[in-house]
Amino acid sequence: MTAATYDVLGIGNAIVDILAKAEDTFLTEQGMAKGSMALIDEARAAAIYQAMGPATEISGGSAANTIAGVANFGARAAFVGKVRNDQLGNVFSHDIRAAGVTFETQVATSGPATACSYVLVSPDGERTMNTYLGAAQDLSPADIDAKQIAASSIIYLEGYLWDPKDAKDAFLKASIIAHENKRSVALTLSDAFCVGRYRDEFLDLIRSKTVDIVFANEAELTSLYQTDDFDKALTQLRSEASLAVVTRSEKGCVVASKDKVTAVPAFPIKQLVDTTGAGDLFAAGFLFGIVRGLSHDQCGRLGALAAAEVIQHIGARPQASLKVLAKEAGLPV
Amino acid sequence: MTAATYDVLGIGNAIVDILAKAEDTFLTEQGMAKGSMALIDEARAAAIYQAMGPATEISGGSAANTIAGVANFGARAAFVGKVRNDQLGNVFSHDIRAAGVTFETQVATSGPATACSYVLVSPDGERTMNTYLGAAQDLSPADIDAKQIAASSIIYLEGYLWDPKDAKDAFLKASIIAHENKRSVALTLSDAFCVGRYRDEFLDLIRSKTVDIVFANEAELTSLYQTDDFDKALTQLRSEASLAVVTRSEKGCVVASKDKVTAVPAFPIKQLVDTTGAGDLFAAGFLFGIVRGLSHDQCGRLGALAAAEVIQHIGARPQASLKVLAKEAGLPV
Repeated sequence: MTAATYDVLGIGNAIVDILAKAEDTFLTEQGMAKGSMALIDEARAAAIYQAMGPATEISGGSAANTIAGVANFGARAAFVGKVRNDQLGNVFSHDIRAAGVTFETQVATSGPATACSYVLVSPDGERTMNTYLGAAQDLSPADIDAKQIAASSIIYLEGYLWDPKDAKDAFLKASIIAHENKRSVALTLSDAFCVGRYRDEFLDLIRSKTVDIVFANEAELTSLYQTDDFDKALTQLRSEASLAVVTRSEKGCVVASKDKVTAVPAFPIKQLVDTTGAGDLFAAGFLFGIVRGLSHDQCGRLGALAAAEVIQHIGARPQASLKVLAKEAGLPV
Repeated sequence: MTAATYDVLGIGNAIVDILAKAEDTFLTEQGMAKGSMALIDEARAAAIYQAMGPATEISGGSAANTIAGVANFGARAAFVGKVRNDQLGNVFSHDIRAAGVTFETQVATSGPATACSYVLVSPDGERTMNTYLGAAQDLSPADIDAKQIAASSIIYLEGYLWDPKDAKDAFLKASIIAHENKRSVALTLSDAFCVGRYRDEFLDLIRSKTVDIVFANEAELTSLYQTDDFDKALTQLRSEASLAVVTRSEKGCVVASKDKVTAVPAFPIKQLVDTTGAGDLFAAGFLFGIVRGLSHDQCGRLGALAAAEVIQHIGARPQASLKVLAKEAGLPV
């Protein structure tokens, strides 16, 4: 195993978030499941946009947010995802590079527009996402650069990648190359509805050791094993994955390996504004801890700190230096 | 004079703001005058964008912000400005309509892209703008609908309109139609550098009574009369304009008509985040007061309240209901 060029390389849907406040009655009228991510086509995207209020555009995408967070902590980060050569594609590319992330995926010059997600933020801070995948669905195995994957300590993949057809193959190709080069592969289950769509395939990925580290929240974990019993589901995941990291919102997180289970509390916040990116930034802090060889407890605390930063403002990317915040909190960075 | 369909109709540059935090050293390195608005071409836009940090896109444009604020207070509002049929043009059109504003200007289907402004927000909340006018510069007299102008109680124009060549003629056409229909015409001087570019023309507009109400901040006022003496400049403007409204940041504002001068304090804030839109939203509150037939003192207070809302968050459009805030502050709406 040669020295790595990147600490973490993420592969995911390259998305620009279009965020607006919305009352819960709006979600009901539009038939949206609060807190979930739904895939929408162009016609539905147009209808939602017309109905929703004034918005703010901020780069998003689950794995992209995580990787921006990893770079913000000070680690070497790269991202692979597909945008179109349009204005929102330029926005996405600018923002991820300006965050210090290497982003070299070939830009699509034809086909659908850059992906966007209409994110409705409820008064209680919960977000409900409606994603038009657009150009993101054209990510394919050809976009996976074997040398870049081989040179990355950890490959991080989002479960949402199972939605675009060819991205799944890109995902598997990256995992194979990573393991051939003795690198680790992490997966986030992304969303309980996403687990509902791909349960068997996700279980296969875990059981076949295609992925080593699994990130999930409570809803995703219990959906994966189709049980209401959190402890039972966690025991099962722990027996199947090398490392299971389960977030529990204000209850903090649980890190479970073969030999131990570590519970870590949430990081205190002043005001919950927008939960968009909470799980993504948790993963950023946790992965950064792994990169630095920290304990599971410290990894969990770094994750909690990053999640706390991102839920106190609009948008799913950090607006402060996570490195500085971690130092102030007495955490090693 | 027939009953008006719109209380305020604004004509201005239709712009999407691209906001990022920047240290003052960045402004110095880039040769930017802190707090000002500079016009940039495509090459300079690309260079600034590449150098600046991760950003947030939010609809902007000076008069457009004012008109969104007027609608937010509950008045009937319309906007005239030019965008291209591209993604940022869709964003602008969506946001202003979602704010409750009538926006019917023909969209450009060829030519330059929708205008954008790279807005650098300093740690002290001051903003420095770099504007690529793009499609906005193609606003022309043909875009002025005589019937719509005739049906609007107040026409509100931004000084920045003097930058795009044909917009100036659109501006003058609107003013003539407005006065033929016994409507009022208001102008904001926009920016001290803008006053520097068009001093004589702005003075002509005031002296020829092409505009009735003039909005300015201290720097714009003293630049207009090329003096450092605020009182002297105010006396001069008061003698030339029907109504002069001068904002003085944390010192509040001064409203001067032929018969009286009214000073109004600033509205208290918790934290200054981003001054983008402060003057625009002040004008929104003031114009709303005029529409409701309120006293100069109450107009000034409504302006101060709206400015206070917008400087406490990122972006130049209100994020709360100004109507509700005004009620809570005991102001008539």
